[in-house]
Amino acid sequence: MSRTRHKLSRKIGQPPGTLVQDDLSTGPVRITIIDYDGQHFEERVVKQIAECSPFRETDTVTWINIDGLSNARVIEDLGACYRIHPVVLEDLQNIEQRPKFQELENYLYMGLKMLQQKPEGGIKIEHVSLIIGENYVLSFQQDIGDVFDPVRDRIRKDGRIRKFGPDYLAYSLIDVIVDNYFLVLEKLEEEVEILEEDIVEKTSPETLERIRALKKDMIFLRKSVWPLREVILGLDRSESGLVRDTTKPYLRDVYDHTIQVIDTLEVFRDMISGMTEIYVSSLSYRMNEIMKVLTMIATIFIPLTFIVGIYGMNFEFMPELSHEYGYPGVWAAMIGVVVVMLLYFRKRGWL
Amino acid sequence: MSRTRHKLSRKIGQPPGTLVQDDLSTGPVRITIIDYDGQHFEERVVKQIAECSPFRETDTVTWINIDGLSNARVIEDLGACYRIHPVVLEDLQNIEQRPKFQELENYLYMGLKMLQQKPEGGIKIEHVSLIIGENYVLSFQQDIGDVFDPVRDRIRKDGRIRKFGPDYLAYSLIDVIVDNYFLVLEKLEEEVEILEEDIVEKTSPETLERIRALKKDMIFLRKSVWPLREVILGLDRSESGLVRDTTKPYLRDVYDHTIQVIDTLEVFRDMISGMTEIYVSSLSYRMNEIMKVLTMIATIFIPLTFIVGIYGMNFEFMPELSHEYGYPGVWAAMIGVVVVMLLYFRKRGWL
Amino acid sequence: MSRTRHKLSRKIGQPPGTLVQDDLSTGPVRITIIDYDGQHFEERVVKQIAECSPFRETDTVTWINIDGLSNARVIEDLGACYRIHPVVLEDLQNIEQRPKFQELENYLYMGLKMLQQKPEGGIKIEHVSLIIGENYVLSFQQDIGDVFDPVRDRIRKDGRIRKFGPDYLAYSLIDVIVDNYFLVLEKLEEEVEILEEDIVEKTSPETLERIRALKKDMIFLRKSVWPLREVILGLDRSESGLVRDTTKPYLRDVYDHTIQVIDTLEVFRDMISGMTEIYVSSLSYRMNEIMKVLTMIATIFIPLTFIVGIYGMNFEFMPELSHEYGYPGVWAAMIGVVVVMLLYFRKRGWL
Amino acid sequence: MSRTRHKLSRKIGQPPGTLVQDDLSTGPVRITIIDYDGQHFEERVVKQIAECSPFRETDTVTWINIDGLSNARVIEDLGACYRIHPVVLEDLQNIEQRPKFQELENYLYMGLKMLQQKPEGGIKIEHVSLIIGENYVLSFQQDIGDVFDPVRDRIRKDGRIRKFGPDYLAYSLIDVIVDNYFLVLEKLEEEVEILEEDIVEKTSPETLERIRALKKDMIFLRKSVWPLREVILGLDRSESGLVRDTTKPYLRDVYDHTIQVIDTLEVFRDMISGMTEIYVSSLSYRMNEIMKVLTMIATIFIPLTFIVGIYGMNFEFMPELSHEYGYPGVWAAMIGVVVVMLLYFRKRGWL
Amino acid sequence: MSRTRHKLSRKIGQPPGTLVQDDLSTGPVRITIIDYDGQHFEERVVKQIAECSPFRETDTVTWINIDGLSNARVIEDLGACYRIHPVVLEDLQNIEQRPKFQELENYLYMGLKMLQQKPEGGIKIEHVSLIIGENYVLSFQQDIGDVFDPVRDRIRKDGRIRKFGPDYLAYSLIDVIVDNYFLVLEKLEEEVEILEEDIVEKTSPETLERIRALKKDMIFLRKSVWPLREVILGLDRSESGLVRDTTKPYLRDVYDHTIQVIDTLEVFRDMISGMTEIYVSSLSYRMNEIMKVLTMIATIFIPLTFIVGIYGMNFEFMPELSHEYGYPGVWAAMIGVVVVMLLYFRKRGWL
Repeated sequence: MSRTRHKLSRKIGQPPGTLVQDDLSTGPVRITIIDYDGQHFEERVVKQIAECSPFRETDTVTWINIDGLSNARVIEDLGACYRIHPVVLEDLQNIEQRPKFQELENYLYMGLKMLQQKPEGGIKIEHVSLIIGENYVLSFQQDIGDVFDPVRDRIRKDGRIRKFGPDYLAYSLIDVIVDNYFLVLEKLEEEVEILEEDIVEKTSPETLERIRALKKDMIFLRKSVWPLREVILGLDRSESGLVRDTTKPYLRDVYDHTIQVIDTLEVFRDMISGMTEIYVSSLSYRMNEIMKVLTMIATIFIPLTFIVGIYGMNFEFMPELSHEYGYPGVWAAMIGVVVVMLLYFRKRGWL
Repeated sequence: MSRTRHKLSRKIGQPPGTLVQDDLSTGPVRITIIDYDGQHFEERVVKQIAECSPFRETDTVTWINIDGLSNARVIEDLGACYRIHPVVLEDLQNIEQRPKFQELENYLYMGLKMLQQKPEGGIKIEHVSLIIGENYVLSFQQDIGDVFDPVRDRIRKDGRIRKFGPDYLAYSLIDVIVDNYFLVLEKLEEEVEILEEDIVEKTSPETLERIRALKKDMIFLRKSVWPLREVILGLDRSESGLVRDTTKPYLRDVYDHTIQVIDTLEVFRDMISGMTEIYVSSLSYRMNEIMKVLTMIATIFIPLTFIVGIYGMNFEFMPELSHEYGYPGVWAAMIGVVVVMLLYFRKRGWL
Repeated sequence: MSRTRHKLSRKIGQPPGTLVQDDLSTGPVRITIIDYDGQHFEERVVKQIAECSPFRETDTVTWINIDGLSNARVIEDLGACYRIHPVVLEDLQNIEQRPKFQELENYLYMGLKMLQQKPEGGIKIEHVSLIIGENYVLSFQQDIGDVFDPVRDRIRKDGRIRKFGPDYLAYSLIDVIVDNYFLVLEKLEEEVEILEEDIVEKTSPETLERIRALKKDMIFLRKSVWPLREVILGLDRSESGLVRDTTKPYLRDVYDHTIQVIDTLEVFRDMISGMTEIYVSSLSYRMNEIMKVLTMIATIFIPLTFIVGIYGMNFEFMPELSHEYGYPGVWAAMIGVVVVMLLYFRKRGWL
Repeated sequence: MSRTRHKLSRKIGQPPGTLVQDDLSTGPVRITIIDYDGQHFEERVVKQIAECSPFRETDTVTWINIDGLSNARVIEDLGACYRIHPVVLEDLQNIEQRPKFQELENYLYMGLKMLQQKPEGGIKIEHVSLIIGENYVLSFQQDIGDVFDPVRDRIRKDGRIRKFGPDYLAYSLIDVIVDNYFLVLEKLEEEVEILEEDIVEKTSPETLERIRALKKDMIFLRKSVWPLREVILGLDRSESGLVRDTTKPYLRDVYDHTIQVIDTLEVFRDMISGMTEIYVSSLSYRMNEIMKVLTMIATIFIPLTFIVGIYGMNFEFMPELSHEYGYPGVWAAMIGVVVVMLLYFRKRGWL
Repeated sequence: MSRTRHKLSRKIGQPPGTLVQDDLSTGPVRITIIDYDGQHFEERVVKQIAECSPFRETDTVTWINIDGLSNARVIEDLGACYRIHPVVLEDLQNIEQRPKFQELENYLYMGLKMLQQKPEGGIKIEHVSLIIGENYVLSFQQDIGDVFDPVRDRIRKDGRIRKFGPDYLAYSLIDVIVDNYFLVLEKLEEEVEILEEDIVEKTSPETLERIRALKKDMIFLRKSVWPLREVILGLDRSESGLVRDTTKPYLRDVYDHTIQVIDTLEVFRDMISGMTEIYVSSLSYRMNEIMKVLTMIATIFIPLTFIVGIYGMNFEFMPELSHEYGYPGVWAAMIGVVVVMLLYFRKRGWL
């Protein structure tokens, strides 16, 4: 799992609400506007925030999606257009932030994590912010590429969504994000199950490495998903009037899905948590097997070697040496030792 | 334990309330209607939901049981007949869902897990949904075959149940489901106890595998049973008027049984959680035993082999070799070494 | 610890309130009646519940104790006499039940666990139910033999208890049950302390078995004692008027004792929980000691054996063999090797 | 750490409020009275409780300290004099009791644990009870010798304490008890730190024993200190009027110190909890080192011994034996083997 | 990480509010005054507290920063000037104290921990106290050197901060302290990641030592950061009127950052907690590898040594010895043994 890691250190000592300016104040940003109501539909990619302002006063639902957070001017302009508080604008850019919900005077702010199964394997965690107002939804993403296409399609095809307000649009976006969590869980489940089988068979450090990686992924996923619960609850309980009562049953539905995701993560966590223990158990078991082999070989041959050593001594007076049955006698004795040893091993259950 | 696993991924991006249509919109479904009151009793297997509608307006209690969730049309029809919200109909089909309770305008929704001891061993977890209305109970199951026969028999035999309303019927169904949990627990208890004895005696990877399987079963059982507590509590505290006061003491009784199930599961969990540790302890103990054998054999014979090696040397000037008592003397020395070693082992407590 | 284990499976699908009839509807039961007030005292063993009815209407406190739950008719008769709800009567017989408190219309129901130190060692866990009414206490036990004798004596001897009502009698019974927990704890403490010393000295599987048994006992004790807290709290907060204010300070006292029992159990649990770890540590330490012995012996004698092996070779041209000081020289070399090895061992701290 | 252990078993079946009479109803008890107000100060050791009664009605603050709880008559007399409830008097003597706070009609009862660093090492845990009334404080201790001397000095020297009431005196006593906890913690911290260093260096069973002892001490300390939090909170929130508002800031101060003690204990607990694990790690590491030595010696010399064994054989036709460079050739081969082995060991990182 | 450790033992038995006097009542202290409002700005380093009094009555915001707590007279004087309660003054000096918030009559008290990355490596934990009044902020630090310079700069440069009151100043100070936590976390993250890789590669006691040190650091960091949550919450919820509503959104922002710090610490803790386990796993794995080498060498050569031993015996009647193909035959047999062994090892997966 690759995580787009950012430095934790923030703009130390800067006054709050200062947006971080990248080298170029005009990083690559894509602004998409979708404007609709039951009758009407318009979709546009614009270059300037100024092009957004005509939509502000209309009754139609306007969804402005920003891909890319590095261009501070775009965000400032949009903030000015929709009168967003500077602290909220700063939050948009703090992509290390945990999921959170905030109720402000004229709009609601939500930050959440979008998980995407990457085609080359691994999971992409992206921070997404939603701002929900009277007649608009603003969405902010780190990069181009998201999971919102099914929602766009439903708007384009004049689905039920066109009859509802921006709160339903916001719900649809959250819903599709949570739906993608299930895809990620499914992939994880597969990995957990493969690992579970490997752990007993192949006790190599590489197995240990995989357990560790899976554990770490789980820690990061939990951190992303747990607070989502409160976020959706906050939205559901919002007293701003921005979330209509007709939308609330849908929010409760997506809340239930979130709980299901959390439950499944907890099950995985329980399953992974015992794995190192099982790995050590398997190693111990193998050690026992190795030691049994060594002990059996040593226990059989060391006494035999001693016996043949005796008759390798060069004493002048060793009556056995000149005895006719000396040599066969020694063989008989040695075979006897071996038989006794084998019986002993069988008794101990080593054979 | 075999679990009927379904894909976690849901219909991503679909508008809520879209029922999943299987290839054939007419999967195998069995619809059973039981209609009764104190005087009257009728039981029917029907083919069409249309046949259910006459029962909707009567005062009698109607129990419609659907086995099989793959036929979306049947569920849609029934939903239309009893005016069930599309989101609830979708929930019916989400069999990976955790147990939950929802209070709606004219009816109550409950999802719970039915556990059945399979004849060939293993546990079958099936998701069951109940919808409780003014004069009806709808029950939805994944497959044909359930634990409700004793309830059916009591209705047929004109038991006390015939005098009560649909809330008492719902209670009876929950009660029989929870009663079956005890059967499953009993089987599990047996397994735990056998495993506890095996763990010290037979330290093979197969034992480890059994611990792991038992742990996993426990995780899934907890996930199924824990939320049931809140579900029954929700039903008990429902202010809809659909649950009569006379039924509430019975609900509290089944609540107590659920707590007893949870308590027992926790006891099992505590017992299983220490098992890997005990397994490793047993392996360590055996390793000690093996090493003691090896060490004793090596410690006795290696010095002896050295001694006989000395007199196998071919030096021309070795006075002992030609000494009359050389050979018996070496034997005496070797016996001395063995005796000293044995005393040492006894002192260390190895013999 | 021996536990009178019963099957967890209940009467599946039976309507609630059905008492389990044993083969003989007249299992051995002992009914004892103690009736008293400040002036008056009467004690009787009766055969028929019918003999209890005269006491129902009197002002005196009546304590009816039932030993043995197998005779369903006796319990049904008593239930009818004192108008006990069938669900409560069923609870009386469910001896696997966790401690619980229930407030009913005219009486209070309590289930708790009576622990008794058995003379032959081990602990007997018995389920005891108390029903507290206006002028009576009914107590139900699994078997004959209990811890209530001191209470009986105090009633017989006209102690303070004779001046109080049935709530004080119930308190006295709970108090004496909790007092017996301390005896059990004391015995356990002794076992824990002996085990703690043995664990380092004697690392045999038998020690492991004792740890496991103690852990298991602890799990069952906790399960018995934890819910007692809420039970006594429930009694203390009862608004039925059946518990007089003068009795409440005594209940708080017994509540404090319960907390003390729980605290002590937790301390034991903490002490036991680390024991397997210590056991494994001891095994590892011993393994180290064994391996040190083996390594020292092998490290000293294997090189020596090699040296003597050299001069056992039969090459024709080996100048050392015919050298006058060859043999003593080899001895000198070997002594040198031993000295070097011993110095090395001392340096590593093995000697 | 030595704990003055008492039997857990209480006076089974005795009516509550029965004081335990020792063999002699006049065990050694020391009664000290300190009576003061802003102007006046009096300190006395008395023999009879009767001598306390004159102070009961005065306006001055009276502090009666009882050292020794074995003399039931003294406690009964004092209880009668100050009208203390029998249940409270019994609590005074139950020295195994956890810290607790109880609000009674005319006075407050507190039980807490006094920890004292013993000069010979180890900690003495003593149960102290305080009874706080309108114009008196009664303190009860198990033995003579306490930590209250600084408070006594401040009273004698006419400190600020003389201007306040009995609540401030009680606060001062609690404060000095909590202050002594810090001394005990400091000593413990030292022990933990020494042990932490030893654990890696000296892996003997004695180290394990010290970990175990420290763990046990920690368990007992937590049990003593945790409930203190609620005790002080109870005192602070008392609505009896016995705790004046001017004293409350001081109580909050001592509350903060208690939290600090608990925090520090938790830190120690976290530090100790991983120690057995580290001990086992160290043992495993040492085992690895031992095994490396053995394996190197065995791997070098066993093949060499085999080689010299070959040329010790007595076959008639062994061309090497009579070869001129046979003997030096064998030496060369053996040196080659040693070099190869050493290179292999270096490659594996064993050297 | 070096911690400026102080003795836990406090001034035992001293009346509360007694400031600890160091040997010299005039320890090194630096007093800095910054006084500003929108128009006006003044910055001074003063010697005497007396110089502070003129600022007390003005409307401007006065920030008095005290570096060094050892001079009790300075603190007493300042306390007298601003009428601070003696208990609070004592708290200022108790640098072992956990972060806490206290609301007093005319001012608010906060204690928190300032973390600084030391240039030479390691973290410096310093206790900082803030007192927030109507028109002033007092800050107290252990030593000279802090993280407040960015705030000072913003005041000097007439930033937004000059338009707000002392509550905003206090917020700015807390904010810059929390910002520095992120720097410390970043450094820790680096250490955790390096250690994670080393743990599998380099299994030396030094690695174990580093795990232990990291664990300990984490324990202390958690202790410092956890209570901060409640402190900021306390400030946010203060009903004193000293915290203006305009400042509250900023406080919520810093609260969110604190939660983010705590979350990250928990993630680190989870990651570190499994490390000893992984270390032991790696050791076990290596032991297995070592034992495999030993076992292979011993298993191959011990039987060979036995074989050559046989033909080293000196029996007169050993037909093989005089056989022409005796010697090559033995070689063939020995090669056979080696081949069989190698096949066996391959089958077991050791090669």
